[in-house]
Amino acid sequence: MARSTLSLLSLVISLLIGLGSADWNILNYQNKKVLSGSSLKNYCESWRINVELNNIREFEVVPQECIEYIGKYMKSTQYKADILRAVEECQLYVSSCCNLKDGKDAWIFDVDDTLISTVPYFKKHGFGGIKVNITSLEGWMKQSKAPALDHTLGLFHEIKGKGFKVFLISTRRESLRDATVDNLIKEGYHGWAGLVLRDLQDENKHVHKYKAEARKRLVNEGYRIWGIIGDQWSSFDGTPSAKRTFKLPNSLYYIS
Amino acid sequence: MARSTLSLLSLVISLLIGLGSADWNILNYQNKKVLSGSSLKNYCESWRINVELNNIREFEVVPQECIEYIGKYMKSTQYKADILRAVEECQLYVSSCCNLKDGKDAWIFDVDDTLISTVPYFKKHGFGGIKVNITSLEGWMKQSKAPALDHTLGLFHEIKGKGFKVFLISTRRESLRDATVDNLIKEGYHGWAGLVLRDLQDENKHVHKYKAEARKRLVNEGYRIWGIIGDQWSSFDGTPSAKRTFKLPNSLYYIS
Repeated sequence: MARSTLSLLSLVISLLIGLGSADWNILNYQNKKVLSGSSLKNYCESWRINVELNNIREFEVVPQECIEYIGKYMKSTQYKADILRAVEECQLYVSSCCNLKDGKDAWIFDVDDTLISTVPYFKKHGFGGIKVNITSLEGWMKQSKAPALDHTLGLFHEIKGKGFKVFLISTRRESLRDATVDNLIKEGYHGWAGLVLRDLQDENKHVHKYKAEARKRLVNEGYRIWGIIGDQWSSFDGTPSAKRTFKLPNSLYYIS
Repeated sequence: MARSTLSLLSLVISLLIGLGSADWNILNYQNKKVLSGSSLKNYCESWRINVELNNIREFEVVPQECIEYIGKYMKSTQYKADILRAVEECQLYVSSCCNLKDGKDAWIFDVDDTLISTVPYFKKHGFGGIKVNITSLEGWMKQSKAPALDHTLGLFHEIKGKGFKVFLISTRRESLRDATVDNLIKEGYHGWAGLVLRDLQDENKHVHKYKAEARKRLVNEGYRIWGIIGDQWSSFDGTPSAKRTFKLPNSLYYIS
């Protein structure tokens, strides 16, 4: 009897906690100006699309009330289909874009969430809802177990096969070089012409500046940059840019 | 009896036509490389998101199989919520961005599908699935009945109220000046500092070039361009640009 009262009590407490957290979500949501008739799903989808439109910038975390929605998207067929379509548009461009000639035709790829996926890490660390802990993320990166994004793996080899020199320009730090190379090789990537990582000097710069400077060095070496594919707008900003850029979706984090 | 046979025959023909067109859709869809387990909805959503990511460019029509999906979106609460969120981000930026001083602080707006909506026109003309007929579209524009986008109407007055000089730079031709002014005034817009439309010389240029040149003239006149809000990527391309840009969703047509 005492035991069943206890069970009942714990059930009531669980329900209250559950309700409490749901209420908090709704309150949080209601504090924002929303359209009449629109739902939390509309609100979170608008957040996501405005990240992709580069209207929402510099966000540190996914809004608390949208963590579940964003998590679902990053695990969904839709996310895969969105990437596939971007890759197809890239293939279409590559098939007729460029008159390659002297070994100086370059293509640039981002690494994380372009070639290999950090989704397994974020799945275990709050799906963008917790401010990124660099030590923890780098610890995971050192294990070299980020899986390839299937469609970009194919694209990488297609672009290389056409005769482009492929350069990887990443936000990762130099200290992660060995782990990064291991991870990429393990996942099927090989034959890049350069892997640019951030050294101590670069760490104090905005990423868009660091990436533009890396492109500048390539151009100074005589390369023509035909395309960039990446998951952050900061991979394309500044000069020199590329003739075409391809943005993959990513609403888990923002790098400026 | 003869009449009912005829009715039956016409029913069968209708059904066959209906099936034929459905089959055609499915065939068309199946011709594309699609993900296993993904649906037509996934496919059309990917098309839409890749237009917004600026990965799909220069499209002349919405893919035949996605017309219904795109039409639904453009009439939806989601479209309104997406615009509201873009406007809110813009308000957030404007609230603290700019140290206005000498009457030379400028803000730029697109006209169509930024200030006023062409959705009622496209609703009656194939929802992006038919190549735009300029004569027909301009005929509709001459009637000055494009409705305001509610959220940008508020934003327009907020930005003007803060002391920015508001310039409207549109793809519309000079011959539409009177109709455009009428339409804007009727919908609640007034007090802009300039309305730039395309003259004969501009018609042979890419729109992004024409718009960049219009900004160049403003900068030469001493204006600082703090922001641009528009529904096409070509509204932001080229130099001089603006400190910030805000892209509204639009997958009905593409202007380069």
